[in-house]
This record gives sequence, C-alpha cells and structure tokens, in this order.
Amino acid sequence: MPVFLDTAEADFDIQFSQLLATKREDSPDVDEAVAGIIADVRARGDAALIDLTERFDRLSLAPDGLAFTRAEMDAEIAKVPAEDRAALERAAERIRAYHVRQMPDDAQWTDPEGATLGWRWTPVAAAGLYVPGGLASYPSSVLMNAIPAKVAGVERLCITVPTPDGQANPLVLLAARIAGVDEIYRVGGAQAIAALAYGTQSIAPVDKITGPGNAYVAAAKRRVFGKVGIDMIAGPSEILVIADADNDPDFIALDLLSQAEHDESAQAILITTDEGFGKAVTEAVERHLETLDRRSIAGASWRDFGAVILARDLEEAARLSDRVAPEHLELCVADPDALAGRIRHAGAIFLGQWTPEAIGDYVGGPNHVLPTARSARFSSGLSVLDFLKRTTMARMSPGALQAIGPAAERLAASESLQAHGLSVTARLRKLNG
Amino acid sequence: MPVFLDTAEADFDIQFSQLLATKREDSPDVDEAVAGIIADVRARGDAALIDLTERFDRLSLAPDGLAFTRAEMDAEIAKVPAEDRAALERAAERIRAYHVRQMPDDAQWTDPEGATLGWRWTPVAAAGLYVPGGLASYPSSVLMNAIPAKVAGVERLCITVPTPDGQANPLVLLAARIAGVDEIYRVGGAQAIAALAYGTQSIAPVDKITGPGNAYVAAAKRRVFGKVGIDMIAGPSEILVIADADNDPDFIALDLLSQAEHDESAQAILITTDEGFGKAVTEAVERHLETLDRRSIAGASWRDFGAVILARDLEEAARLSDRVAPEHLELCVADPDALAGRIRHAGAIFLGQWTPEAIGDYVGGPNHVLPTARSARFSSGLSVLDFLKRTTMARMSPGALQAIGPAAERLAASESLQAHGLSVTARLRKLNG
Repeated sequence: MPVFLDTAEADFDIQFSQLLATKREDSPDVDEAVAGIIADVRARGDAALIDLTERFDRLSLAPDGLAFTRAEMDAEIAKVPAEDRAALERAAERIRAYHVRQMPDDAQWTDPEGATLGWRWTPVAAAGLYVPGGLASYPSSVLMNAIPAKVAGVERLCITVPTPDGQANPLVLLAARIAGVDEIYRVGGAQAIAALAYGTQSIAPVDKITGPGNAYVAAAKRRVFGKVGIDMIAGPSEILVIADADNDPDFIALDLLSQAEHDESAQAILITTDEGFGKAVTEAVERHLETLDRRSIAGASWRDFGAVILARDLEEAARLSDRVAPEHLELCVADPDALAGRIRHAGAIFLGQWTPEAIGDYVGGPNHVLPTARSARFSSGLSVLDFLKRTTMARMSPGALQAIGPAAERLAASESLQAHGLSVTARLRKLNG
Repeated sequence: MPVFLDTAEADFDIQFSQLLATKREDSPDVDEAVAGIIADVRARGDAALIDLTERFDRLSLAPDGLAFTRAEMDAEIAKVPAEDRAALERAAERIRAYHVRQMPDDAQWTDPEGATLGWRWTPVAAAGLYVPGGLASYPSSVLMNAIPAKVAGVERLCITVPTPDGQANPLVLLAARIAGVDEIYRVGGAQAIAALAYGTQSIAPVDKITGPGNAYVAAAKRRVFGKVGIDMIAGPSEILVIADADNDPDFIALDLLSQAEHDESAQAILITTDEGFGKAVTEAVERHLETLDRRSIAGASWRDFGAVILARDLEEAARLSDRVAPEHLELCVADPDALAGRIRHAGAIFLGQWTPEAIGDYVGGPNHVLPTARSARFSSGLSVLDFLKRTTMARMSPGALQAIGPAAERLAASESLQAHGLSVTARLRKLNG
C-alpha cells in the first residue's frame, strides 16, 4: 500500500519531508569497471569494441560490421507493421513541429555608445545518441532525442545501440531512419560512450552525447563529460497528479500506473482535495494491478514509493507539488490554466482530464526527456538548445572604446591585470592622438 | 619561445594536432579529500564550516559570524575609491543591459488537431555563487555571475567567498551589493560548495551553484551535481587572434598577453596571413614581457603554450580556428563580419581592431564566463538561461485526443507499456461513447 498523508495531520510536514528524501535508486558503484572499459576503447579502438561486444552482448562482430549497412537496415525495417510505421511517422511529425518553434533567434544591436553587440547560435557539428537494448529499447526515445538534434541543424547524428545475441529492434531502426539519423552502430554500454567521445577506427568522435542508459552508461557519461557535452543523467520516472473530485478515478489510476509500470523505482503521487476521490483512485489502482502485464513492477513502485496526499485546497496542493518538483505533473481540475500559474517547478505540465501523461510520451509534441529526482528545480527537458551553442559578439567603434575603455582600464588595474589594461590603453592612446 | 607553424609545411597537420592535444592543466586528484569535507559539512553543518575555515583560512568565526552583516559590508565598501565604484557601476549597467535581452519568451499555440501546446520559463528559486579568495578574487566575476541570475529573476542569491586571515576584498563586496546579492558568507573551498548544496544551520541550501574555483571547488561541484545544478567547470583562459598585416603589432601582442597573464596554463595563439606581421607581434610580446608585472606567469604561458601560425588565407585561418574552438576569438581583419560568418565554434568573438578582448572581460556587456578547453564545440558562455528552467505545457481537447490518441495507443503497445495505452484507451472509450 502506498503512503497516505493528510496535510491536516500534526506530523504531516515530517512525513512529507521523509517522502521527499526517500532514496529510490541504488546506483551500483561501477566507476572502476567503467574507467577500465574507457581506457581499453581509447587504447585499442575497434578491437576493444569487438571484444567487449562479444563478452557483454554475446555477438561476434566482423571488423567492418560495427555499423548497420543500408541493406541491413532495410531488412529489419521491412518487419515493421504498417500501423506501427504510421504511428511513428505521426509522432515524428508532431515532435518536429513542436521543436521547430524552439529555435532561438540570433540578435544584433548597436548601443548609444557605438558598441555593436549580439549573439549567434550555431549547431553542434556531431552528436551521438545512446539507445538501450533489450526491454528499455524505446523507439519513442529515438524520436525524442534525434529530432531536436536534426531540427537544431546537427550535420552528423549517430546512434549506438546494443543488439544482444544479434537481436535488433526494427522499430528503433525505423525511428532512426524517420528522424534522419546518419549512422547506427551495434555497440552498447560504457564502450559505446567511450567510442562516441574518443572515436575509434570505425566511429568518428562526436561533440555531444545524449540518451538514457543503465548504471554503466551513466557512469561513462559522467566520465567523458568535459571532453564532450552530455545531457542530464536521468533517474527513475515520476508523476504527480493534482485532481479534484470531478474526475474519473479510473483515468487517474491508469495515469499513476503508466509511470509506475516503467520501473520499480518509479514514483506516482496523487494530491487531491477530496478524501473519497483519493480512496476511489486507490481502489482503481489495486484493481488494475490484478491484471496489468507489468503488475509486479508497477505494484512494487506503487507499494514502495506511491503516495496519496489529501490537501485543504488547490493552493496548498500547488505548494506541495513545487516541493516535489515532479518530472510529470497532471492538473486534473476545473481550471487547470489557473492552477498552472501557481506552479513553479515541473518538467512538463499536462492540463485537464483529456491529457494523459502518456500522450506526452509519444505524440503530444513536447519532449519526453525530462528532469527527474527534483532536478526540475534547476533544469529543463531536452530541447533544440541542447544541440546548439551561443557565441557572443562584440564590436567597438573608436567612439565606443573611448567611451567605455577607461572603465575597463580602471577595473583591470583594480584586479592587478596589467596587460588587460594596457591592451585598452594602447588603443586609446592612438585614438586620442 | 612559442611554437611557430606554417600551414605550407608538410608536417603542419601533425604539429597542429599536437598543439590541440597538449594537456595544459594537471588537475591534482583531490577527490577523496573533497568527499571527506562534504561528508563533514553534511554531518556537522556550521560546526564543520567553522573548523575548516580555521584550518584553511586561519580565521576564527563566531557561530553567528558566517554571514557578513550589513554594517560589516558598509565598512568594507567604504574603502573603495570613487573611481573604482563608478567603473563597477558602469560595467554592471552594461552587463545588465546585455543580459536583459537574453530573456527568452514563453510560447503557447493551438494546433489544427486542437492540442494547446507551449512552454513557460521560470527562474531557479535560489542560487549560490562561489567567489575565490586571494589573487583570483575578481569583482568583475561577481558581476558576470550575479547579474544574469538577478535578471533571470532568482529571488535568493548568495555568495560564498573565503577571507584568508580575515582579509576581505572590498571591491568584491561592492560588486555583490551593486548586483543585488542577498547574502554573503565567509567560507570557501569544498566546504562552501557543500554548504550551498546541502545547507547548514546558517546557510539555506540553493538549487544552482555557479562560479570559478580551484581544484577542490571544481571537484566539489562535480560531486554535488545532480543534487543541485552547476555551471561548467572552467579551465585556463584562452585567446586566439586572427590578424592580417594591417594591424598594430603592439595591440595584438598586448591582447595575447592579456590572456597569458591570467595563468601559466593559459594559451594565446596568433593566426596571421603575413609572416612579417607574425614576427613583429612576437617581438612586441617579448618586449612587453621584459616589464610586465606578471611577466613570470605570462612568460611561462607564452613559452609553453603560445603559438604563431602562418595561414595561406582567411578561409584557412577560420578552419584552423574552428578546430581550436577558442574561448575568446579576435578577428582583426578588414572585414571581420564576413570572417565571423565562417566561424562555427567560439565562446565569444571580438570584431575589429578597436575591440580588445579585455573590453569583454569588464564592460562590453556580454558575459566573460565562457567555454574553455575546446568545449565551445558543444557549450555556451554563462547567460540568463543558466538561471531559468523551462516547463513544457500540453492540453488536449477531446477532439485532439480522438485525433492523436490512437497513435499513442499503438506506440505504447509496441513498447509493451500497457498502462500507458490504457490511460488513453479509457478516455477514448468515454469520448466515443
């Protein structure tokens, strides 16, 4: 059974703080093993990738067999049913339409002193996307990572995906093709991250690596950070639903379960202003848990980390939600826009009863790669900005330098950086004759 | 003497690659010591801060003496000469004017299917800025970190700055006041980062930490990343100047030295299309190195990591610069705008002979916290975006769910996420009667 909390209880704050502090994930310490794998790939390149793939994925790769050929892609993709293809294309189209709007503008202006200032955005030249193998190999994640990169203008986008026992996921390959991915390699784990960061004979290095993975992949991403850019290190999925009594308990129960079924460490929380509704949702969850395919995973998540919180009013519910800073937040209330205006920290907000979180996982348009573990307090979901960088621009006219140069000379002197000051002084001397 | 390279030489590519691969910084491995310090601060809070400050900064703090009081600030700030204050205020005004323009827009639209989509930016609630003590305690850095945070709307902004032997830097305190910093604490090192991330009795925890620091500070920032957001880990400063013959060699020499004087590990590179000009700049550098206050630092940087590269033309110079991806790039050529159009990777570009890099360090307006060590390939300088986060928004009308829900059901089934699919199915069933 999940935790039941009532904000009217005297010990609510203690219990809520405990809920927030609960550690849901035990990251095994694989850092030493990962350091060894990265060193091996840097030293031996493709040969290391081939050995490690044999060892971890039970797959013998030929020296020229790391990349999928076009024909191999075609053969796999041909297995995808037409309806699945249509759904993926529909999703891709909507994700692209949303992310195109995120493209930021360049800027340039000249200020009253005569300084021309601004900035310019340019895409990362090459990006690598990690795709997990096995159960967590999601074609939707390929779209969510690859489309923002291509919208940003990344010229070379490659994927690494393990194919345990040689089994590829045709939907992942199709999603990659739909998204315009340029290269796909049959490697996984820390060795794939090392290859993307440092390059091998077959795999040219990239500048940025994104995508989810297991503890080895996460540790490898932390290690190569700085050499290349990385996205966030994702934790287990989370949903928080704020719902009033005027909802179908079954809808809300299924929304909670849709995150609980991801992972035993996932967290689903309901905050409601109506005690009876909270009970009805709990009963509906229990009922679905009897038949759900992934009932053992979802049941463990709900039992260990689930919570139902009774709040006095929506204002209080919003305050509690901000303390959680959830990855996914559903607002199932009469005026969801007004309630959204009171929320400060959330990865994504789903407004109203017709917007189940699962729509956002696939076809809504916004990205489903979102900040977890309360990091929505300081970070955002994946976007085109993750594949762009900004160069600031400045050009002084002689008059501008005469106007603001003396302040720079003064500050350089106060910081004892003499050459900084002289570089301004030499120019002012020439300008002032 | 710095390296001289000529793109016409047969072994140029090998030598240039060596230059790029040169490791300029030896980071001592302080990770274990830092882990101990963080654990101590988490366990003992203020008491640990007081002990560590006694040990590292030779300063005895009273239990209620961690924060500067208003009167203590006033007393220190009164020491600042009026001209320094005016220069700092001028700089702050220009930095604010630039960063205000970076504020991104929220967005909302309704698509043909009836889905209302968009996003919303909100500020981080609390941010902490680390300011080094001693020689590298720069008031300009306080402005460059604090002003973007305040422009973004951060409500609580605090600074930690060590005061070795009780010595505070009045200009740092004045810069903090001008920038609107709310709290200033006399602690430094890994213990300050731990206090900002986890909080103590005197220091409430923040959500985001920025600012430069030594190896201990950098290691501590890496360790608390995830619990809070951090900015980049900055490496030694770099400048690359592309200059044609039509420049004053003295200007360019001083620009190169203005980065070389920061740090023995700094790097200054000149790419020129004119061999004679390259020689003239080198001679000017040597001449200034005879008298410069920081000649031992600047001389070591120039000798060990400096380079003068002779290129065939500006097109080639731009290509080489992109391989370096410099933190600071000066374009001292007849048409700097045209050349800037050929550059893809740089932290900041300074256009034309009247724009010395030092202007950008102080009063230009753009931020001087910029990506180093070739990370301009995938990252950007500090900006208001570092203190904001984006929440994506989605609201489906019943019609929108009917239009795109079936694709979500299909994809959920293909990923074996049954509850995801059912959360859509249950709603479609009700809508479709």
